[in-house]
Amino acid sequence: MGESGTPRAADGATTLTQSAVAGDRRALARLLTAVENRTSIAEAALRELYPKAGRAHIVGITGPPGSGKSTLVAALIAAAREAGRAVAVVAVDPSSPITGGALLGDRVRMQSYADDRDVFIRSMASRGHAGGLASTTTAAAAVLDASGFDLVLIETVGTGQSEVEVAAAADTTVVLEAPEMGDEVQAIKAGLLEVADLVVVNKGDKPGALRTAAQLRAMLVPTVARGDAPEGRPSPKRPEVLVTTATSGEGVPELLAALDRHRTAARAGEATEPRRARALAQIRAVMADRLADRLREPALTSVADAVIDDVAEHRLDPYAAADRLLQAMADRR
Amino acid sequence: MGESGTPRAADGATTLTQSAVAGDRRALARLLTAVENRTSIAEAALRELYPKAGRAHIVGITGPPGSGKSTLVAALIAAAREAGRAVAVVAVDPSSPITGGALLGDRVRMQSYADDRDVFIRSMASRGHAGGLASTTTAAAAVLDASGFDLVLIETVGTGQSEVEVAAAADTTVVLEAPEMGDEVQAIKAGLLEVADLVVVNKGDKPGALRTAAQLRAMLVPTVARGDAPEGRPSPKRPEVLVTTATSGEGVPELLAALDRHRTAARAGEATEPRRARALAQIRAVMADRLADRLREPALTSVADAVIDDVAEHRLDPYAAADRLLQAMADRR
Repeated sequence: MGESGTPRAADGATTLTQSAVAGDRRALARLLTAVENRTSIAEAALRELYPKAGRAHIVGITGPPGSGKSTLVAALIAAAREAGRAVAVVAVDPSSPITGGALLGDRVRMQSYADDRDVFIRSMASRGHAGGLASTTTAAAAVLDASGFDLVLIETVGTGQSEVEVAAAADTTVVLEAPEMGDEVQAIKAGLLEVADLVVVNKGDKPGALRTAAQLRAMLVPTVARGDAPEGRPSPKRPEVLVTTATSGEGVPELLAALDRHRTAARAGEATEPRRARALAQIRAVMADRLADRLREPALTSVADAVIDDVAEHRLDPYAAADRLLQAMADRR
Repeated sequence: MGESGTPRAADGATTLTQSAVAGDRRALARLLTAVENRTSIAEAALRELYPKAGRAHIVGITGPPGSGKSTLVAALIAAAREAGRAVAVVAVDPSSPITGGALLGDRVRMQSYADDRDVFIRSMASRGHAGGLASTTTAAAAVLDASGFDLVLIETVGTGQSEVEVAAAADTTVVLEAPEMGDEVQAIKAGLLEVADLVVVNKGDKPGALRTAAQLRAMLVPTVARGDAPEGRPSPKRPEVLVTTATSGEGVPELLAALDRHRTAARAGEATEPRRARALAQIRAVMADRLADRLREPALTSVADAVIDDVAEHRLDPYAAADRLLQAMADRR
């Protein structure tokens, strides 16, 4: 287990990272593809870029389908550019209009940034990430961060476990709700709201938006159980509830300001949990990769194949199997 | 790394597993709670039960919100009971009507099985599974399998990565679609359809159901790329497309028959991939648990904490961190 990738990968990575950091967007795109595929180039590149990252504000934006996430992301890009900030978006949403989905209006709006080097939009498949979706998006965010983007928005659809984990690993997590979504999504709301730093009722021009916001504010009264705040620590903060109309841009500058406030407050309180959670997710993913790599070593593949077959046929339980494989790895170290 | 849990956990587990296998549903419920929380009792119990599992037909049922999954599951339970089979359901869906969601009709229908020992319904939180949702549901399915259920239905909402993985690990995966869902979900469909063994257009009484089924059949023409079938192996099979109306039960016996056909065909073709995938998911989860356990050993926690902090503060990259921790583990073995 060396301290770096192969020399060739490291060389290729150095060229790519230097170009990406210097502002070459095609190099950046290639780097993100490497990150998504977890190639050796990605490893070498992330090792180079990681010390340069840590400056961007990583914002997770999540919510149920139909809450208008992509339109809000488009509006946030506009507001951030207005404020002179460089924005990158990682959209982890198979149906995201931003990444080739349905809403033509959003796509047209996105194309207006085609020549703006300070806007970078990247879609990410939500399936098939060996080390987990959270670690892939976190690594992608680190690359964008090191490449000089001030604001990195991670858009996820927010109905599955992985998406919530992605959102929860951001510095600031925004949970969207549409007005009057009925009883059926209350449970989803409850699950998502746990990770919310800011709650946004989008589609503010629809009837019921203000009532939904009022209901959410009532739901979000901090409880003792939620905070369990020991003495000396700040008591749990109730997430702010905002109302936006992403299609017209109404409320979006206020959302941008609220994001900044949350970040400032979190830093003052030295809220390191999201950063540690991101770090741990990445470390775990690499450790899992290392184990998987070891299982593919010629000396171990036959053992691994036999053990997997034994578990598949219920001749061996998964615990005994895992212990057998870990022992085989230790023996062959 | 012992070959079993603590003696006390093993004793408690033996009592629980014996009771569960003997038909004690409260013991079964407690066992599943242990599995969900990955306790030492769960480990001891799974080690005991695992050799008894492998007989049930594990069926994943997934699809977008609103496609009527829970109503179809309820209808499948009725049809399976009609055929004299014992059915268990693991519902991984925060908004599942079956597990306390919104649709009163389904809940009432479920309550009619309150005294039927051959129907067992269990909800599973979709978040916070240390070893991954796929491994938890797979372990739960193995417990239900060993407890004598013929059919184990795993219902997932099917919009996130984890849910798709859960579905893909079943012997047979059913993907639901509602008629005429519009352009917006085509991308989700495409992602889900990849894992489908059977596609069901539910709400067959709505206009457009037959047209949707026809469109799906056209989309599902097997391509060379999909199968890459080498000589001697069966060419890729196009998933059957069925139409059901779960509320009235129409088409449900036909679905049950199609499930049986798929299982028989899969067994004849010795399709071991889902079984191997399930086995690997479980082994990996245990290996990840073992690593996490080791990081909590007193000798390693301080190293781990320091390394996580270093990555969180971008003083160390995740690859170097993972290697450092793995090395520390090997040194302290």
